[in-house]
Amino acid sequence: MKTPLIAPSILSADFARLGEEVDNVLFAGADVVHFDVMDNHYVPNLTIGPLVCEALRNHGVTAPIDVHLMVKPVDRIIPDFAKAGASYITFHPEASEHIDRSLGLIKELGCKAGLVFNPATPLSYLDHVMDKLDVILLMSVNPGFGGQSFIPSTLEKLRQVRQRIDVSGADIRLEVDGGVKIDNIGEIAAAGADMFVAGSAIFNTGDYAKTIAAMREKIAKAVA
Amino acid sequence: MKTPLIAPSILSADFARLGEEVDNVLFAGADVVHFDVMDNHYVPNLTIGPLVCEALRNHGVTAPIDVHLMVKPVDRIIPDFAKAGASYITFHPEASEHIDRSLGLIKELGCKAGLVFNPATPLSYLDHVMDKLDVILLMSVNPGFGGQSFIPSTLEKLRQVRQRIDVSGADIRLEVDGGVKIDNIGEIAAAGADMFVAGSAIFNTGDYAKTIAAMREKIAKAVA
Amino acid sequence: MKTPLIAPSILSADFARLGEEVDNVLFAGADVVHFDVMDNHYVPNLTIGPLVCEALRNHGVTAPIDVHLMVKPVDRIIPDFAKAGASYITFHPEASEHIDRSLGLIKELGCKAGLVFNPATPLSYLDHVMDKLDVILLMSVNPGFGGQSFIPSTLEKLRQVRQRIDVSGADIRLEVDGGVKIDNIGEIAAAGADMFVAGSAIFNTGDYAKTIAAMREKIAKAVA
Amino acid sequence: MKTPLIAPSILSADFARLGEEVDNVLFAGADVVHFDVMDNHYVPNLTIGPLVCEALRNHGVTAPIDVHLMVKPVDRIIPDFAKAGASYITFHPEASEHIDRSLGLIKELGCKAGLVFNPATPLSYLDHVMDKLDVILLMSVNPGFGGQSFIPSTLEKLRQVRQRIDVSGADIRLEVDGGVKIDNIGEIAAAGADMFVAGSAIFNTGDYAKTIAAMREKIAKAVA
Amino acid sequence: MKTPLIAPSILSADFARLGEEVDNVLFAGADVVHFDVMDNHYVPNLTIGPLVCEALRNHGVTAPIDVHLMVKPVDRIIPDFAKAGASYITFHPEASEHIDRSLGLIKELGCKAGLVFNPATPLSYLDHVMDKLDVILLMSVNPGFGGQSFIPSTLEKLRQVRQRIDVSGADIRLEVDGGVKIDNIGEIAAAGADMFVAGSAIFNTGDYAKTIAAMREKIAKAVA
Amino acid sequence: MKTPLIAPSILSADFARLGEEVDNVLFAGADVVHFDVMDNHYVPNLTIGPLVCEALRNHGVTAPIDVHLMVKPVDRIIPDFAKAGASYITFHPEASEHIDRSLGLIKELGCKAGLVFNPATPLSYLDHVMDKLDVILLMSVNPGFGGQSFIPSTLEKLRQVRQRIDVSGADIRLEVDGGVKIDNIGEIAAAGADMFVAGSAIFNTGDYAKTIAAMREKIAKAVA
Repeated sequence: MKTPLIAPSILSADFARLGEEVDNVLFAGADVVHFDVMDNHYVPNLTIGPLVCEALRNHGVTAPIDVHLMVKPVDRIIPDFAKAGASYITFHPEASEHIDRSLGLIKELGCKAGLVFNPATPLSYLDHVMDKLDVILLMSVNPGFGGQSFIPSTLEKLRQVRQRIDVSGADIRLEVDGGVKIDNIGEIAAAGADMFVAGSAIFNTGDYAKTIAAMREKIAKAVA
Repeated sequence: MKTPLIAPSILSADFARLGEEVDNVLFAGADVVHFDVMDNHYVPNLTIGPLVCEALRNHGVTAPIDVHLMVKPVDRIIPDFAKAGASYITFHPEASEHIDRSLGLIKELGCKAGLVFNPATPLSYLDHVMDKLDVILLMSVNPGFGGQSFIPSTLEKLRQVRQRIDVSGADIRLEVDGGVKIDNIGEIAAAGADMFVAGSAIFNTGDYAKTIAAMREKIAKAVA
Repeated sequence: MKTPLIAPSILSADFARLGEEVDNVLFAGADVVHFDVMDNHYVPNLTIGPLVCEALRNHGVTAPIDVHLMVKPVDRIIPDFAKAGASYITFHPEASEHIDRSLGLIKELGCKAGLVFNPATPLSYLDHVMDKLDVILLMSVNPGFGGQSFIPSTLEKLRQVRQRIDVSGADIRLEVDGGVKIDNIGEIAAAGADMFVAGSAIFNTGDYAKTIAAMREKIAKAVA
Repeated sequence: MKTPLIAPSILSADFARLGEEVDNVLFAGADVVHFDVMDNHYVPNLTIGPLVCEALRNHGVTAPIDVHLMVKPVDRIIPDFAKAGASYITFHPEASEHIDRSLGLIKELGCKAGLVFNPATPLSYLDHVMDKLDVILLMSVNPGFGGQSFIPSTLEKLRQVRQRIDVSGADIRLEVDGGVKIDNIGEIAAAGADMFVAGSAIFNTGDYAKTIAAMREKIAKAVA
Repeated sequence: MKTPLIAPSILSADFARLGEEVDNVLFAGADVVHFDVMDNHYVPNLTIGPLVCEALRNHGVTAPIDVHLMVKPVDRIIPDFAKAGASYITFHPEASEHIDRSLGLIKELGCKAGLVFNPATPLSYLDHVMDKLDVILLMSVNPGFGGQSFIPSTLEKLRQVRQRIDVSGADIRLEVDGGVKIDNIGEIAAAGADMFVAGSAIFNTGDYAKTIAAMREKIAKAVA
Repeated sequence: MKTPLIAPSILSADFARLGEEVDNVLFAGADVVHFDVMDNHYVPNLTIGPLVCEALRNHGVTAPIDVHLMVKPVDRIIPDFAKAGASYITFHPEASEHIDRSLGLIKELGCKAGLVFNPATPLSYLDHVMDKLDVILLMSVNPGFGGQSFIPSTLEKLRQVRQRIDVSGADIRLEVDGGVKIDNIGEIAAAGADMFVAGSAIFNTGDYAKTIAAMREKIAKAVA
């Protein structure tokens, strides 16, 4: 297993002092800044765009920024995020009719590329692009809404993707997002995930470092 | 003339420390926080949504927040902004086929309502709704792009709207957004505007208070 | 003034026995069957389509059927309604980018054609098509929702349209829809309307004939 | 095999006396009222909406009402149908990018939820939602048009879905719609269907009871 | 009056030998090559794109090419046509929500810019952009269909636009397209047009030069 | 293996003398005229429509014309191309929600029907329509852009489709489009293709006949 990565979702941070929040959570041991972009079309919410990403870079954030596009279509905004300092850019296959082209565009711009799967989205979208992916993100809740619980059938889906990755031999991260907590992160890791998005589970606790450490411990135990 | 209102656009502020930026510009004498929402559909950019508005309220901002929706359609997101603490909500008539209904929705939710006019948008959209407006916003640049100069024909359009407002006798603010600077704010005020959005003209200067004071002085002279 | 026409909106009738309802309201003195078509896109509701119109014709209804399309786009469904027995077909100018063509299509198919104006829609859409219209319908509520009251500024708008019709010399009905009741039908007629849609104001009363008679009496007094 | 359900499609009934038609067909032995909703966008036709469903409930219909949404998108109208008395609500996976969420919404509102497959739609949409389905509906004609014949390859597709259901152990109805008649209902049942939509095959016969009885007999023989 | 320009529409030419056709019609005295672009969305037809424009330039055509965009939206394809050698680029105001921006884009790329008015489109779209226009094109038929006759009310609309141009003092061509023939070109010129699109009226005649000369003669007489 | 077909894409021909170009390439030994239709919506380019197809037929072209629709939606334009003389009409499954219906429409109009797969599109769209296909077209580049190289993973995808065709026993052509050249046409044929689109690889060479002959030779060797 690759070294597990903890990716706090800044949607749960305080936007009035976002630079400080991000500094704190990275200092507390987080590996990646998870950045959720919603456009009020692909999902019924509108969050933050390239300007906010760029502001984090200007603030001095050097950790990877993992941009999850919940927008449709995707091609026009990809260069904006690449220019704003994104490290990963992921999108939903339903949001681009030219998936191979969108993946290619992300990589040409120097970012890592990935596909995101909604809970019901079939894995057949992976069939012909395993050689172009740096990350596969499985949603374990429905994107665009808060306060949801981890969907249990995600575990089986994680196992299926893990197997596809292992069979392919490709260097692909398996990321999961939605309802991830200290309580369930162990079984999620055991199912094959190695990159873990958590929002309120980190930002709503008083002690980011303690939470992240607890998550790492659970993961380590589960995959031992 | 109503007391002129200076409304700094926070798109030009530092998003890594937005609360502090807003505190500073209000302390420096600004009247209203201007909040530009873009959805990557109505305009080719995506900025900030209700969560950021709510964060400012939670941070303690009590000044009016003036939300300019550059989104299409508009009805679904209006309640989100009302709940997030918006004071004004304005939208483009082309972005709602049920303009009267959208205006009504904003007002039912306790906010002030307005229409925004792109540089080429005809004023006939005002013909049957003057009694439902709290603000009319004229764009003096094309929305969704930075670095544009004030379009001169806006002055004549401002005069036409000023006349419509005066004839109607209604209590309506006349707002202008785009390329407003110390240099031209006087003639803009003279043309009838009484609410002035400025982004980089304020945030890119070292001294917010000095800039805002200079703007007020120019306005005062122009309308004297 | 033309003979006023009373047009009960069957959206307020009992759909389980629609033929009987329509028979009854026509027997009670109504002139025209008003038929509201919503597609869940132009307005957030979906009502009834051509099959229901055809069923009324097969049931033996010979009165004019006045089909108000709250759909977008409009051209594909116009022939379906013409074939299903519509007498009038009206649509919103915002719902067709080729307004002249849509009007022409309706007339080629042997129906009367009209434009519908939302409360905020400017009358400039009339400028170049007065010679192609059989009816102009002013919405006095926002379409797609129930339980709204008559918007007072409609009266002034009716007067403006009445003047346009009179100046043109064309043979055009002036129809109004939304919140029309015995109480206000007089002033609506005085403002220039000569075709009156009413839904619950007729169908929710015990005695259709009495209501329609009262409406006629109010109109007669107002325009005397 | 579950008890087979016969679901007459009311699109073939007489809309001028729909309550009576539904009463008659239920009295004649039908189990479920099949209700086809088209929005003139997902399919090129517009039929009937929530008001008609509600009218049937107010008329006294207590049998299950099986609402097949041929609309896109689906989420906004689902609550309207739940409130109007729908028992089942089914939709096409292509018509919702958040399939799991739409299924969840239907169930939260107390209805049974299902997915509908067009003739060419791959079954991979079932891969991750078998635990959330109450019904799977296979279209054996292309939706939105009348007068089509049963597509023979549906039989093989039925067998594949039957196997998926049996393997899953879940309590899921397998419904079929399009060109179902006395002549072919036996082989359809043998292929695994246990819920049968029929429109003109029932309503265009003089004797509903005799037709339904003949259908049941064919089914019974086929699955014996 | 400016020197009248005759602009044959190549939609009526033979696409198998387009270069030769264009050479011939220019040699016969035409001034401008009219190029109709349809995208099967804004109008229900798909014609020719930038590659065909570029081929004419590579073939040696040096006359102005007048590109009429019947596409929606317009901004993405404008640079393609500028690069392909377009001289004029015109679009419909309904096809761009940022009309001023689209006009500006065309001019920045070195082309002449114009707005096109459908028969029913109100002239209020001209109110705030007269200083940015090089041409105003009035459609005298509905675009996207062949075989239509000149709509008579276009004459009055031409007079209104002629007056706007004269009042403005701007250097703007007034172009007309649809059903223009030798028989009516005189009264069209008298109404104010100075740029005349004709398709079959030129290409379907045996002698292009004779037809164009006859058109010029009629114009000259009418405006004498 | 079926006799291999060489299908030059006329997008690379000279549009100023298209009839001559097509005559030449057919005389040089090409089998089929490949015709790429783009609508500036499904792909970001607009090319040529039915009028150009019809012009080739009127010019005397009798070879099969293979129309590849890169448009969305597809149903409205299919009859236009059938009428204009198309032999094959292919479309992308993502571009029609009623795939079976679109295929049926093409065949009813007397043309051969096919599905086109983008590089990342899963083959599950084939599962239920093998009996309705005359051709399957695999894109070996992303459609809508020029100057791309053959995507190597297409070879494996070709083998998978070849196997599906062979298993089905159906009479289906396996076509490939994108980056096909003399250098790689052998391995493409070996992977199962029997219909080869080539644009610049043919039209940008001085000697069409020599190029086509070289391609045939490579194919023959590869499948020997």
